[in-house]
Amino acid sequence: MINYPKGTHRQEKVSNALTRSKKTQRVSLYSRRGMGLEDEINQANDYYLENHLAVIHKKPTPVTIVGVDYPMRSAAKITEAYFQKPSTTDYNGVYQGRYIDFDAKETSNKTSFPLKNLHEHQIRHLANVLSQGGIGFIIIKFTKFNESYIYPASRLIAQWQDRSQARSITYAAIVEHSYQIPTSLNPSLDYLRALDSMLSDLT
Amino acid sequence: MINYPKGTHRQEKVSNALTRSKKTQRVSLYSRRGMGLEDEINQANDYYLENHLAVIHKKPTPVTIVGVDYPMRSAAKITEAYFQKPSTTDYNGVYQGRYIDFDAKETSNKTSFPLKNLHEHQIRHLANVLSQGGIGFIIIKFTKFNESYIYPASRLIAQWQDRSQARSITYAAIVEHSYQIPTSLNPSLDYLRALDSMLSDLT
Repeated sequence: MINYPKGTHRQEKVSNALTRSKKTQRVSLYSRRGMGLEDEINQANDYYLENHLAVIHKKPTPVTIVGVDYPMRSAAKITEAYFQKPSTTDYNGVYQGRYIDFDAKETSNKTSFPLKNLHEHQIRHLANVLSQGGIGFIIIKFTKFNESYIYPASRLIAQWQDRSQARSITYAAIVEHSYQIPTSLNPSLDYLRALDSMLSDLT
Repeated sequence: MINYPKGTHRQEKVSNALTRSKKTQRVSLYSRRGMGLEDEINQANDYYLENHLAVIHKKPTPVTIVGVDYPMRSAAKITEAYFQKPSTTDYNGVYQGRYIDFDAKETSNKTSFPLKNLHEHQIRHLANVLSQGGIGFIIIKFTKFNESYIYPASRLIAQWQDRSQARSITYAAIVEHSYQIPTSLNPSLDYLRALDSMLSDLT
């Protein structure tokens, strides 16, 4: 259980109307931090699924359920639950027979990507994925430039181990070693195109 | 949002003590239905991860979060949430470079596995996985016999489409067309051994 997201003494209530729409799963507090990028990835994943290009889903936010109420004739209502620390990355799936696994992070920083945006367990998970022959990466979005990159997990893991030397990856290093995701109309973040470039470099 | 699990006018409260242990993620109401099999699979997945044999995780139960309270100095508390209908299967991951995707179902039936244990969206998801070159199946446990089988998604999908003819798969057909999971000590359900047989038949 983790104190996440941070907040102070207040009660938050999202409109009940939201629960009627399919979009609600994205309206968790958990996801609000990276709303822009996450929505773009969800949109791309929907597009890929509909067009039989890839099967990639965002994992649900893990919660520990403590109390549930069962009102008559209506949906079971969870009355007490807590956010758990995720043990993996947020996205995984299959693309042309390959196992794909990644996380997505935004930064408003213009010169570097701070490694504190990531957690030890995510890095360890990506290392495990690579050791099983999966494809691992993070999508980094520099919001000030509206630029998004696929940054390979292999580089990220090496930098994580050296983070006593550098606590961030410079923008220049990301531009040099990443695969920039081209902007397009539909989906707006067509990240499979950048992934294709990464995969062709791997083989 | 779904009325799930079924229940009548009552209030359920799981001990707060549970939230302190790592096991709590398995103590959701959602998982209680298939406790035995699910625990066995979780144990196997932990074993595979620790021994670098595979990276396979159970996905969190999807919930729609409506209300969150932020008490001072303690974890954010979800005060209102609802179970969502999962859009995929429960387990996925990577094994020797291959994308693995499955669901797990128990039955106390001795003569057949009723197809009503599955949902349309799970079948559709497995079909999407196969079309991307992933490995899809279900693990079926006959609790009365303490026998568990890997049943390939390709057969399941064909039978699902014919379900106007037969609303269940006979035990005999499962025995004939599945890969039985051998019982062992650690993990008790070593399903990768059965998966190896299935994979060698595929190639």
